[in-house]
Amino acid sequence: MSFEDWLDAHRELRAAAGLQRQLHPRPPTCDQLDLAGNDYLGLRLDPRVTRAAAEAALRWGAGAGASRLVTGTLQVHADLEQRLAAFTGQPAALVLSTGYQANLAVVTALTDRDTLIVSDAHVHASLVDACRLSRPGALVIVPHNDVDAVVSALRDRTLARALVLVESVYSVLGDEAPLLQLAETVDTYGGVLVVDEAHGLGVCGRGGRGLVSAQRLTDRPDVVATVTLSKALGAQGGAVLGSRRVVDQLVNVARPFIFDTGLAPAAAAAADTALTVIEAEPQLPRRARTTAAAMAARLQCAAPAGAVLSVAMPGPQAALEAQSALAADGLRVGCFRPPSVPDGVSRLRLTASAGLSDDDVRRVLTRLGQKGWRG
Amino acid sequence: MSFEDWLDAHRELRAAAGLQRQLHPRPPTCDQLDLAGNDYLGLRLDPRVTRAAAEAALRWGAGAGASRLVTGTLQVHADLEQRLAAFTGQPAALVLSTGYQANLAVVTALTDRDTLIVSDAHVHASLVDACRLSRPGALVIVPHNDVDAVVSALRDRTLARALVLVESVYSVLGDEAPLLQLAETVDTYGGVLVVDEAHGLGVCGRGGRGLVSAQRLTDRPDVVATVTLSKALGAQGGAVLGSRRVVDQLVNVARPFIFDTGLAPAAAAAADTALTVIEAEPQLPRRARTTAAAMAARLQCAAPAGAVLSVAMPGPQAALEAQSALAADGLRVGCFRPPSVPDGVSRLRLTASAGLSDDDVRRVLTRLGQKGWRG
Repeated sequence: MSFEDWLDAHRELRAAAGLQRQLHPRPPTCDQLDLAGNDYLGLRLDPRVTRAAAEAALRWGAGAGASRLVTGTLQVHADLEQRLAAFTGQPAALVLSTGYQANLAVVTALTDRDTLIVSDAHVHASLVDACRLSRPGALVIVPHNDVDAVVSALRDRTLARALVLVESVYSVLGDEAPLLQLAETVDTYGGVLVVDEAHGLGVCGRGGRGLVSAQRLTDRPDVVATVTLSKALGAQGGAVLGSRRVVDQLVNVARPFIFDTGLAPAAAAAADTALTVIEAEPQLPRRARTTAAAMAARLQCAAPAGAVLSVAMPGPQAALEAQSALAADGLRVGCFRPPSVPDGVSRLRLTASAGLSDDDVRRVLTRLGQKGWRG
Repeated sequence: MSFEDWLDAHRELRAAAGLQRQLHPRPPTCDQLDLAGNDYLGLRLDPRVTRAAAEAALRWGAGAGASRLVTGTLQVHADLEQRLAAFTGQPAALVLSTGYQANLAVVTALTDRDTLIVSDAHVHASLVDACRLSRPGALVIVPHNDVDAVVSALRDRTLARALVLVESVYSVLGDEAPLLQLAETVDTYGGVLVVDEAHGLGVCGRGGRGLVSAQRLTDRPDVVATVTLSKALGAQGGAVLGSRRVVDQLVNVARPFIFDTGLAPAAAAAADTALTVIEAEPQLPRRARTTAAAMAARLQCAAPAGAVLSVAMPGPQAALEAQSALAADGLRVGCFRPPSVPDGVSRLRLTASAGLSDDDVRRVLTRLGQKGWRG
């Protein structure tokens, strides 16, 4: 079979399953209300944040120009790392160009052949890929939020080391991880807890400091967090938060950090300013959570831990139709179908943003309360 | 062993081997001449490029706000994709947030269990990681630029499909791949040639269109190229260039594309404007190459294919000392030691930039002609 035939065959299989996707470029502003993105605090277009991005591009350049260990570490990176650590209460931080790479970096740099990785079934694709890339001695996928299964896996292991991978707030169901119990488990049985705070930072915990901070786990050397700069902070990039030892290990061995140009100055400065805004306006994280809770009540689904919520649908086609019905009424929501879902269940995903006005929120709640869009 | 002890043990091993690294943040401008970064055309700080970045941040936001298939595809991404395709003469392009992820995306999306991957020994770490992540049916590392070895691997394979991974210009030695022979090999024996043009785009070929274009391989459906936006284009991000079928496959199955927030608008617009500048000033790529050739002549090393050249050193310590000696004289050069080198040989890496003034170039050539820095 020629390469072109192979590509066509894959496309036909996707089309037959109703899973063929296309990109739809959008203009800078859009009539629809965005309940699909991850701009949880409305900071992506906040003039303070965009001005910081613009000024950094003019002053520091459009890119970092080199990898971080060569000449690509700029003062804006160091400033952002200090700020992220201070904001979350962590000893140290390391900034990478994407959240995806932050997850690849932390897992690969902390895993060796003598390591068992225990991963929650609902972790993000970047952590799944991180497991594949890390080539651990063994890998166990535990049922979602099943602490007993984590305990068993750690207690019964034959390998010396263990890494437990979870998210603080899961986008699959919108729920949170039992972080305190998980931290006690790694403390008791030996291991490292890696917590992806992609949906927690800027949304959950006191003033949006995330759930690792809320659970007072920031002084635990065996708890490491990752965050993204592209959701609540409205920019681009990711970071690993933990002890200085962890950051030193990553700087020296994490290939997704070492072999990548440093984050663009505009994104670093935007994220830094977003943190300033969040510190000055702690009502923003609260507003995002309150709106999400109101949306969940209207949808009669479980109260979300953060600002992302999930509505199970009968199948990919039904999910697409519901998405279209809401779009026709000006609400843009996410539609997640295989292979973007861990359990094969197609879902609508709705996110709340503190950037929605009171009028917007009323319109959303009214529309979600109507049953029509469920077809 | 506790996690902290494990981290300390690794740090001590690195320190004992002279391989412990640290980040050194730098101010926006620097007295040293940068012969270490990859800003080959000096566009990173070009006011046209930085203004485009600033304007895009103000207009489109500090980040894309969502993954590309959700609501994170903005018109700036589509514009850049069209521009990249037109500039290189390729049918289509797909932009990702880093060059590292572009390489992960293309290899994972085009590999299945029935695929043999044949990789040149000198490909970039991101392609090595891509092989690990792709879980191919088989993997063969061939000696650098050894076309016969590629022929043998393809001819003797038992698997139906094959992917051959090379760079157009290698940063390890600064040399180029025999692209024409490799393209003929995949054509004859069946397979896909993936060419990383990270060091070729903006530097090599007519007006900086890269070597895939120079070798007239852009109309071959079985040749796929990747580029970075963070070297000659001075921004951040990466892209995959090839047929529409290839782009469609990536959009639908490439996890490093699907599960990542879209590239920040500032970086996309900066790269787009950098391409405009290069089209208007074809002397820029020429100047970068001419300067690199003059540096190579002074160093009595092989003439480079692009603007990156490589000087083998006796060991990591000698490489560090040479780097320091050049730094004392105002020249910042790269120093690559294990594990950043494929063959264990420590090297100085020097890059030329069209952004160096005539005076700068004279100063560089004078200093490189002196033997003192070799210790």
